Amino acid sequence: MIELSLIGIGPGNPRALSLQAIDAMRAQDVIAIPRKGAAKDDLAELRRAICAEHLRGTETRIVEFDLPVRDAAAPDYRAGVEAWHDAIALCWQRVLTDALPGGGKAGFLVWGDPALYDSTLRIARRLPGPVSVRVIPGITAIAALTAGHGIALNTVGGSFTVTTGRRLREDGWPEGAETVVVMLDGDCAFRAIAPEGVSIWWSAFAGMEGEIRLSGPLSETAPRIVATRAEARARHGWIMDIYLLRRDAA
Amino acid sequence: MIELSLIGIGPGNPRALSLQAIDAMRAQDVIAIPRKGAAKDDLAELRRAICAEHLRGTETRIVEFDLPVRDAAAPDYRAGVEAWHDAIALCWQRVLTDALPGGGKAGFLVWGDPALYDSTLRIARRLPGPVSVRVIPGITAIAALTAGHGIALNTVGGSFTVTTGRRLREDGWPEGAETVVVMLDGDCAFRAIAPEGVSIWWSAFAGMEGEIRLSGPLSETAPRIVATRAEARARHGWIMDIYLLRRDAA
Repeated sequence: MIELSLIGIGPGNPRALSLQAIDAMRAQDVIAIPRKGAAKDDLAELRRAICAEHLRGTETRIVEFDLPVRDAAAPDYRAGVEAWHDAIALCWQRVLTDALPGGGKAGFLVWGDPALYDSTLRIARRLPGPVSVRVIPGITAIAALTAGHGIALNTVGGSFTVTTGRRLREDGWPEGAETVVVMLDGDCAFRAIAPEGVSIWWSAFAGMEGEIRLSGPLSETAPRIVATRAEARARHGWIMDIYLLRRDAA
Repeated sequence: MIELSLIGIGPGNPRALSLQAIDAMRAQDVIAIPRKGAAKDDLAELRRAICAEHLRGTETRIVEFDLPVRDAAAPDYRAGVEAWHDAIALCWQRVLTDALPGGGKAGFLVWGDPALYDSTLRIARRLPGPVSVRVIPGITAIAALTAGHGIALNTVGGSFTVTTGRRLREDGWPEGAETVVVMLDGDCAFRAIAPEGVSIWWSAFAGMEGEIRLSGPLSETAPRIVATRAEARARHGWIMDIYLLRRDAA
């Protein structure tokens, strides 16, 4: 029997860790850390630093492993993701069987919150054999975005929609939405939106060291974001960004 | 000059506190704790317990104060909320001036995350005079809901909408939405939705001691939730609940 804990560690500031995440880390036999290739070395390094700080005095072991890479050229996005998740589940299965041949407790450190645009929970559900799954919630990149800008997510009594760059580009502004949060946007999809009467609050590396924030009317802010994002991406070798769009009150 | 910190403390489990929330608490001159009347005494008590645990060894003072009550009979919901926020800002102003006549650092402990259906940020923006506002993000009730049920918030590449019970009742299922999270619902608004092909994941006291979870097809789960909610509310004297609705894949 493997007891799997998916531990939300927040958006990338080691101080964003919750006490229950630390409790959960310290209760594991093994913490498995994926290496994701050069672009994400910074993230693996941050996971290692978090472990070094909080596992002191425990017998928790750290196991690093290489993750399969998604075939970004797959013609069908969803099918490509499905195949990739299957491959990762196989890989996890191997890592867990090697590390805990007699069963035990294994933890994965998940950026942000495990429920939000993260595949870890879906992959865990594909593991064969006796596996229990427990989730420790984390601070989301959305909360880091709004905290950094000092803004509320919703207007008074209002609703909001959270979507992806792909959806925003393909489907346009979500029907009836007043506030839209966009994640997983690799290509500045806000340029696909008619900018009149829309404001944007944008953060790169939200909640992390080196956070960059820009905000204002979308029309004039969009080109500044595009330029800032390209420059930051070139400098870091990778980028994670997120933004909130709001229709100005009429 | 008052430096105000709005500190997200998560959904009600003292272990949901982040390290940066604790850092922020310990850096304050004063932490202001509102008393909200009998129904919310449990919440004031939890704030006091969090302070007792984490302020040890600091000179941070605790100031308790009574909040004005919203006029629930106000005919216009938004106008009623505006007037209430004005009254709270006046009350805060008095509390802060009394506690820090020469200026200083004051912190408010905010349930969940300060950006999500919370008025603290909006009230802070109404304070007159030299006030700076800093926000420390927290774990949301949404993350506690999904963690408890072990579910993802979004389908693969999908979007989701977060709304209120009032909106769901008045406007129905949000146009085009696949997943809907409902907060601030005092009256089981899910009963206003056609239940065919919809599943619900419901939690009361999500993330807190005594969390209650129910899930399943909306048609058969709705009456169980209504009964369980009424019973739990009678027993505790108050209730906080949240739920996720998802259209089943066709």
